[in-house]
Amino acid sequence: MITVAEALAAVLELGAPLEQEFVPLGEADGRVLASDVAATRNQPPFSASAMDGYAVASTDVSEGDRFKVIGEAAAGHRFTGAVSVGEAVRIFTGAPLPEGATRVIIQEDVLRQGSTITLRGNLDEGLHIRPAGGDFAVGDIIAAPRRLGPSDVALLASMNIAQVPVRRQPVVAIVATGDELVQAGEVPRDDQIIASNSLGLAAMFRRAGAISRVLPIAKDTPTSLKMALSLAEGADLLVTIGGASVGDHDIVADVAETLGLERQFYKVAMRPGKPLMAGRIGKMAMIGLPGNPVSSMVCGEIFVRPLLDRFLGLPASARRRTSMPLSKPLPANAGREHYMRAVGANGAVAAFDRQDSALLTVLSQANALIVRPPNDPARNVGDMVEVITL
Amino acid sequence: MITVAEALAAVLELGAPLEQEFVPLGEADGRVLASDVAATRNQPPFSASAMDGYAVASTDVSEGDRFKVIGEAAAGHRFTGAVSVGEAVRIFTGAPLPEGATRVIIQEDVLRQGSTITLRGNLDEGLHIRPAGGDFAVGDIIAAPRRLGPSDVALLASMNIAQVPVRRQPVVAIVATGDELVQAGEVPRDDQIIASNSLGLAAMFRRAGAISRVLPIAKDTPTSLKMALSLAEGADLLVTIGGASVGDHDIVADVAETLGLERQFYKVAMRPGKPLMAGRIGKMAMIGLPGNPVSSMVCGEIFVRPLLDRFLGLPASARRRTSMPLSKPLPANAGREHYMRAVGANGAVAAFDRQDSALLTVLSQANALIVRPPNDPARNVGDMVEVITL
Repeated sequence: MITVAEALAAVLELGAPLEQEFVPLGEADGRVLASDVAATRNQPPFSASAMDGYAVASTDVSEGDRFKVIGEAAAGHRFTGAVSVGEAVRIFTGAPLPEGATRVIIQEDVLRQGSTITLRGNLDEGLHIRPAGGDFAVGDIIAAPRRLGPSDVALLASMNIAQVPVRRQPVVAIVATGDELVQAGEVPRDDQIIASNSLGLAAMFRRAGAISRVLPIAKDTPTSLKMALSLAEGADLLVTIGGASVGDHDIVADVAETLGLERQFYKVAMRPGKPLMAGRIGKMAMIGLPGNPVSSMVCGEIFVRPLLDRFLGLPASARRRTSMPLSKPLPANAGREHYMRAVGANGAVAAFDRQDSALLTVLSQANALIVRPPNDPARNVGDMVEVITL
Repeated sequence: MITVAEALAAVLELGAPLEQEFVPLGEADGRVLASDVAATRNQPPFSASAMDGYAVASTDVSEGDRFKVIGEAAAGHRFTGAVSVGEAVRIFTGAPLPEGATRVIIQEDVLRQGSTITLRGNLDEGLHIRPAGGDFAVGDIIAAPRRLGPSDVALLASMNIAQVPVRRQPVVAIVATGDELVQAGEVPRDDQIIASNSLGLAAMFRRAGAISRVLPIAKDTPTSLKMALSLAEGADLLVTIGGASVGDHDIVADVAETLGLERQFYKVAMRPGKPLMAGRIGKMAMIGLPGNPVSSMVCGEIFVRPLLDRFLGLPASARRRTSMPLSKPLPANAGREHYMRAVGANGAVAAFDRQDSALLTVLSQANALIVRPPNDPARNVGDMVEVITL
C-alpha cells in the first residue's frame, strides 16, 4: 500500500494545464483565468462624487457660508467649466468632480434658494470624493490562475475586459462497471443495484469546472469494458468506477492494460477507498475509483478534483482545506488516513458516528470531511483537525 | 430609514414558492427538491458482503477451521443455494450474502487448497456484512425543500428516483440604468464607466439557482427606461441597478410607478447600500438596487438571494450565516447595519481596512461579509461575529 500523498503526487503527474481559450465575460463565472489581465483604465476613471450634493472649491467651510450655483454635474454628464472659491456645482453620486472642486457638501447640509446655497450647522465632515484610480489604476492586474466568481466578473467588467482568457474545461468520461449495476429508471433484478456514483461524480466534476460525459455502464466482460472505454475517446480524463480492486471479478485493470494503460499504483492506505488505479492510455489520463458508493465520492474529492484543478492550471493548494476545532471527541485512528464524514457548524466540526463506506445517506448529510492522519491518537472537543469543505 | 430586517421581511413578501417540475436526475444537481421523495427499495437491497472472501454459516470460528467451498457469489450474480455449517461460498465485495451465511472471512485470512479453505491465525474479527436496508429502507425519504448536491444525486440514484420533483428556476431580468454606463467591450467617453454590476449579479443569481437575463442598459430617460423594463416581461423578478436614490436624476421609481409599481420602501439603514426599492409590477416582483458597485453586489446578497430562496421554496434560514472569531480587531460601528468585506481563513475572520463601497477590488478579494449590528461596540481579536460566506 502507498500513502495518500504518494498516490496524489502520482495522480497529479497525469495532468498538465490545458490550453487557453477566450470566453465572453458573461460566460466567465466559474472558469479559471489563464493569463493575467491588466486594467486599461482607471477606476473611477475620474475623481467622482460619492454623494448627492454640491461640489465646492473649499475644504474649510462652516455654517452660514454661501455659494453661487453655477452649473450641474450628473453621472455621465460632466460639468465642463471650473469651480472657483464662492461657487458651487450641483452634483450627483458618481458624477465627475468639476475642475477646481475639492469637497462635496451633501445636500442634506444645504439650504438652497434660487441659485444660492447656504450651509446648515452640524456639517458632515467628509469630503465625499472618490479619487481617480482609487479602486484600480491602468496596469493593475488580476493575476492568473484564479477561479472567477461573481465579484471577479463585476471587476473584469469595470476593467472593460469583455473577452476573458481562461483554461479550456477538461472533459471527463465516466464509466461505471459491474454486472450488478443498472441505470436509474430501470428495474433492477433482486441481486442488482442502481448505478449511483456515475451521476454523483458527474455533478461533482461539473462543479469543479469540468465537462462530464457519463458513458454506458460496462459489464464485467472484456468485450463490454472495451466497448465502454472506447467511447471515452477524446476525453482528457477517463474515470472508471469499480473493478479496481484485487478481486477475481475486477477486470478493469486487465482490459485497460490491453488498451495501453501503464498502471501506476493499486492500493492506497486510506479509508474509505483503498483500491485505486491511475495511469494513462495514450494521451488520456485514467483514474480507477473503488465501486463502493462513499469511497468513490470521497476518492473523487481527494484525487480527481485536484487533477481537475491541475488541468485548469490551479495550484494544488487551491484545495479547500482548513482547520477547525472539534465539537465532539474522536477515537484513535488506525494505520490508514481516514476521511470521516462530518458536519461543520458555527466554526466547529463533528464526525458522524456511522462511518461505513456504504452509507450514502450519511455522505448526503455531510458538509465536510475530517482528515485523520494514520495512527492519529484520540482527539477531544476543541482539538484542531484538518477539514475539507464539501 | 427602515432596518435591514424590516426591508428583508418586505422583500420576502414579494415572492412565493414557484411551481414544481420534473427533471432527469442527471440535471438535478443544484436544483431544489420540491416534494419529499421516498425510497422504493432497500439499500443495500440484500445483505451483502463488504469484502472479498468466503461466506460461512458460523460467526464463532478460529485458526485451523476448515470449510468446503460449495459455490461462488459475485456482485450481480447471487449464489442460489444455502450455506450450512462447515461450508463456505467464495464471495466478492457487494455480492448478495448466501442464505444461511452469517460472516465473511476475508480472503487474506484463508489458505485455499482445491475446494477446501483453512483459516489462518490472527483472524480479522469483523463480520464484513452490510445488512439489507442499512443505508436506507423502503419508505425512507429525502425531505423537501433541499438544495441538491452531488452526494444527493448519488443517493437519489441509489433510491432509483430517475425523475426528480424540483422547483422551477426563477427567471430574473436585470436592468442597469444610467447615462454614465456602457457595456463591457464598448469604448466609454471620459465621463462614462463600464456597467459592471449587471454581469456580476447575473452570475450571483445563477449560482443561487436562477435563470438570469441581462437586459440592455437603460438611459436616464422615461422612454429608455420604459423600453428596458418592458423587455423584462415574463420574468419572476425584475432587478434594476441604480436610479433608486433620491437624487434628481433617479427616475427609476417614477417610471416603474407609471407601470403600476407599488413601491414598498426606499432607504435601508445599512452600509453599503441605503437606497433600495421593492414592489410589484403586476405579477412580477421588483427590487431596485443601488448603483454603487459594491452596494449592488452586497444588496444582491442580502436581499435578492433570500428572495430567490423563497421562489425556490427554501426557508429564510437557508442563508449561509455562521459565527466566527475575529483575527483582527474592529472599530465601533455607527447607526447602520454594516456588511464588512472580509477574509475568513483557518476558522477566523478579518475585515479589510478599506471598506469604501466603490472598491470592487476589495470585494473580489473577500470571501465573507462580517455583519455588524447598528451601534455595535469595538470588537477584539477572538470575539465572535456573524459571518456570511460568499
